[in-house]
Amino acid sequence: MGTNAKSSGFSHIDGGVTAPRGFTAGAVDVGVKSRKSHKPDLAVLYSERPCSCAALFTTNRFCAAPVTLGRELLKTGTPLRAVVINSGNANAGTGERGLRDAKAVQAEAARLLGLREDEALVCSTGVIGEYLPVEKILGGLARIVPELSPDKGSDAAWAICTTDRVRKEDSYELRLSGGTVRVGAMAKGSGMIHPNMATMLLYLTTDAEVSREELHRVLAAAVDKSFHLCTVDGDTSTNDTAVLLANGASGVGLANEADRAAFAELIETVCIDMAKRIASDGEGATHLIEVQAYGLPTERDARLVARSIAGSTLFKAAVCGRDANWGRIMAAAGYSGADVDPSHADCLIRSAAGEVQVMADGFGADFDEALATQVLSEHDVTVIVRFHQGDGEATAWGCDLTREYVRLNGDYRT
Amino acid sequence: MGTNAKSSGFSHIDGGVTAPRGFTAGAVDVGVKSRKSHKPDLAVLYSERPCSCAALFTTNRFCAAPVTLGRELLKTGTPLRAVVINSGNANAGTGERGLRDAKAVQAEAARLLGLREDEALVCSTGVIGEYLPVEKILGGLARIVPELSPDKGSDAAWAICTTDRVRKEDSYELRLSGGTVRVGAMAKGSGMIHPNMATMLLYLTTDAEVSREELHRVLAAAVDKSFHLCTVDGDTSTNDTAVLLANGASGVGLANEADRAAFAELIETVCIDMAKRIASDGEGATHLIEVQAYGLPTERDARLVARSIAGSTLFKAAVCGRDANWGRIMAAAGYSGADVDPSHADCLIRSAAGEVQVMADGFGADFDEALATQVLSEHDVTVIVRFHQGDGEATAWGCDLTREYVRLNGDYRT
Repeated sequence: MGTNAKSSGFSHIDGGVTAPRGFTAGAVDVGVKSRKSHKPDLAVLYSERPCSCAALFTTNRFCAAPVTLGRELLKTGTPLRAVVINSGNANAGTGERGLRDAKAVQAEAARLLGLREDEALVCSTGVIGEYLPVEKILGGLARIVPELSPDKGSDAAWAICTTDRVRKEDSYELRLSGGTVRVGAMAKGSGMIHPNMATMLLYLTTDAEVSREELHRVLAAAVDKSFHLCTVDGDTSTNDTAVLLANGASGVGLANEADRAAFAELIETVCIDMAKRIASDGEGATHLIEVQAYGLPTERDARLVARSIAGSTLFKAAVCGRDANWGRIMAAAGYSGADVDPSHADCLIRSAAGEVQVMADGFGADFDEALATQVLSEHDVTVIVRFHQGDGEATAWGCDLTREYVRLNGDYRT
Repeated sequence: MGTNAKSSGFSHIDGGVTAPRGFTAGAVDVGVKSRKSHKPDLAVLYSERPCSCAALFTTNRFCAAPVTLGRELLKTGTPLRAVVINSGNANAGTGERGLRDAKAVQAEAARLLGLREDEALVCSTGVIGEYLPVEKILGGLARIVPELSPDKGSDAAWAICTTDRVRKEDSYELRLSGGTVRVGAMAKGSGMIHPNMATMLLYLTTDAEVSREELHRVLAAAVDKSFHLCTVDGDTSTNDTAVLLANGASGVGLANEADRAAFAELIETVCIDMAKRIASDGEGATHLIEVQAYGLPTERDARLVARSIAGSTLFKAAVCGRDANWGRIMAAAGYSGADVDPSHADCLIRSAAGEVQVMADGFGADFDEALATQVLSEHDVTVIVRFHQGDGEATAWGCDLTREYVRLNGDYRT
């Protein structure tokens, strides 16, 4: 797993989303779902200074109330100071009342923190179609706000999780020409043990001084190389949200092209790392599958091919069964919609246990089935498909499809 | 299941694909796969007279050798007399040798039947990436041809199956202005107990006199309303083939607009019926799911919505668990790519056990969970989503996602 750190300019530090200067966080268990989760389910992320902000929201037309509200808020370009996130209830499919509930949470957070309402963003993840337990959440806010601390990034990262098996957070220091800045991240994946939960949430913080426009450019490019190439089950959630907050507390900005490139590279690295962790922690998953596609006519073709293979139900089931089923890999490439000519394609499967070439020059290679099984027994598996049509390349991530996924998602909601 | 026969002009008869006059068939077990299947795996469908013919093939770029060959053959517009179909081996991913093998089967069938080579179509379904056992198949042809009979339609329908639990065949009589014609059908679905097998095959026969152009129009329209709205696991096979053969042996043609409409309606009915049987017999499936979408701006939008819901991994898992998870239904509508406004949508789930409205006017309805579970305990379940944006409507079919699907597809190939 771990991030590729060879790209020099940055290094890991502790602290998660509150590692950057001027950020604090807090989390409590308010019992959003009546059945006790024994984990915090409400988080506040706070910045002592106004943050320029970029955000991307789900493209699902059936989007949650906080997404509708957040999209409006971000349009105004007003600096943000706080984000409130609850897990356990998505506040989706809740109509006008859902919007009122989200606004009530926003208003109370602003009041407690001494902010204008438009300085607080509200996010939710969890069950679709149930009303938000607003009173519980307002009560929780009153408990969190007095205790906000730079040491509670990890608590917040755990609070936003629903059925994720592990929290997903990280932080980095990056040397720029004017000094050192920090970047923190926390994400929530699509574990869906209690059905109706299916959301990707991503919060990135930095103490660099970055304009809203630059943040948006960097975030959009990074998400395009990471979350847009990451699939767990092909279902796009109603609540997906990615937010990048820059509060400038370091006093260090992006002074030149090299700084901008270094910052963009770090944000992309963090996003790819988080996408991989989400795929790896996909519901019921026993494998992280990385698919590298090379030699397609365009990058777009390569993205289609990589994503199609990573998302193929049949191939995902084969990986679960440790079956080097290259026919399914090529079939998924073939129906991807890409301009793909499989007649001279090569295909390899690789992991820490070794590498097998399963297809060469357009058809099946004679390979060692025992070795293939061994390769596929590792948790992290890489599939490499190589065509000979151009320079387009892309990498996508997914996970295997297991009986546990079906069991978890077939369980009754209540 | 059973076809809706209320549309008057036609009625069920026995005989399957050889019910129309002038068609014979035969099937034997040649052991295409070395492990004995104890079922026939090679079929020949033969017409005593030349047939005008229409065919549709998979859009998968990684298509099988017989698909490449068949596509070329059908382009010429030459009348067909015979179709040879083997199961157990897809002859896909087999390069130039695969093409030579398919041609060898075609040549030997033509020789034994006294036909020109371009009068015989060859089809395969089964494991991808292994060479066709040509000698076995040629030997089998020599045994089948002398025994071709109008009584063996059912044998052929069983021979083309791989892991289908039931054979899929039917036949009908249709009254036209000039007399009575017959239509026969056999299909193979996507049961994939032995991985790498995933093919939809459809063979329609008729003794009506119909031009190649008319056949193509009718078949394309029927497939568009049936197989293109049918999903088992979202994986488009390398071998999908639909063929409609008309040998004119009845001496009755499509004399007027009413005849043409009646013939087209019957072909559409047969295709929808076969598509439903394929979904119902989807690998590991315990439910047939019909999704009806109404009130979308266009038919295209309705098709996108219906297909997206029928194909949603999350919703399929919920149906397996008898969970009336309407949030997943609406989420799938939301990401379908259709112009869909869920703010006033209604959603019902219906089966022989009753009906529950799970969503009304854009958000969750208070429904009887016990009744919902009962409704979802039936094998055939219908989901109805109604929007209020226009007249676009469509119906799609799918099956639930079960642990058995994962088990079957995770098994090792050999």
